[in-house]
Amino acid sequence: MQALEERILRDGVLKSGGILKVDSFLNHQMDIDFINEIGREFYRLFGHEKITKILTIEASGIGIACITAQYFHVPVVFAKKAQSKNLDGEVYTSQVHSYTHGKDYIIRVSKKFLTSEDKVLLIDDFLANGKAILGLLDIVKQAGAQVAGAGICIEKGFQDGGRQLREQGLHVESLAIVDLDENGEIRFRSQS
Amino acid sequence: MQALEERILRDGVLKSGGILKVDSFLNHQMDIDFINEIGREFYRLFGHEKITKILTIEASGIGIACITAQYFHVPVVFAKKAQSKNLDGEVYTSQVHSYTHGKDYIIRVSKKFLTSEDKVLLIDDFLANGKAILGLLDIVKQAGAQVAGAGICIEKGFQDGGRQLREQGLHVESLAIVDLDENGEIRFRSQS
Repeated sequence: MQALEERILRDGVLKSGGILKVDSFLNHQMDIDFINEIGREFYRLFGHEKITKILTIEASGIGIACITAQYFHVPVVFAKKAQSKNLDGEVYTSQVHSYTHGKDYIIRVSKKFLTSEDKVLLIDDFLANGKAILGLLDIVKQAGAQVAGAGICIEKGFQDGGRQLREQGLHVESLAIVDLDENGEIRFRSQS
Repeated sequence: MQALEERILRDGVLKSGGILKVDSFLNHQMDIDFINEIGREFYRLFGHEKITKILTIEASGIGIACITAQYFHVPVVFAKKAQSKNLDGEVYTSQVHSYTHGKDYIIRVSKKFLTSEDKVLLIDDFLANGKAILGLLDIVKQAGAQVAGAGICIEKGFQDGGRQLREQGLHVESLAIVDLDENGEIRFRSQS
């Protein structure tokens, strides 16, 4: 998605350790008109599937998933990271390792909101080592639901998650795939 | 907002300890068409103010804030709860006590995204003891920004946050104020 690549070059900041900061428009401050363009693009890519739910993970995925869901006219379900008084009853759980936060955590989705009748689109802001998407896939599988694919805003091509997920047969669409050239500068992988 | 009161009566579940679960449409599974109605109502209530940013707190506030921001055509900034590699540089911080999770936590907003030029609308799904909104107000004050008010989906009238915030002079608009009658059943406070 050319508009996203241009926005990353204009407003993104590449830090040491392969950390790409896009917090001015995507995951701390959110440019909602721009995220609408992203939602429209996910609909172009997955709108032919009979999707019944969009599944994401708190926190950065939620806003993008909600804007995107408007094009699909389906509910969003977001996996919760914290054990809460508000999340009782039967839940699906999966363990995820966060590279960003440097720890493992449990994600939870109430069994009420994901069933074998569902066809699910996964949405997230970043794909790096793929652990968050693997956790969501695990929960979709526990529910006996189908997965239509994963819509990712930014994939870090220099980490391994995208390759692993595609090898498993998951339909992954990343709107921008960031590679690093020999000088450590951003290069976008061309996608046909 | 009558549609919200009806939805709470239809789909909300009142648990012991004054916990009202609305996770089927508001804060775990999210009914996006319905949340658009909520966003429109916040715009009716605050659209006359020259709002430049919507500020909320992760995680449940984010989706509601993003949908609402489409009516105001302003960015959303969400306060983060976790210390992250992605949040470096200068940040405003405030300490908040969570009733739901039973602990204190620090919220953080990058100084880049809130300045003395801003007029801020606070958005959240729930108002109970008001600690989250007080934390956001503290951050707005540190930034030297103005606050236009707080748009809340559901206020628990039987907790003290709403009264305290209004006594401080904050313009609080709660789309439904839930009180409990002598039998512990839900009664909505009438609002003129």
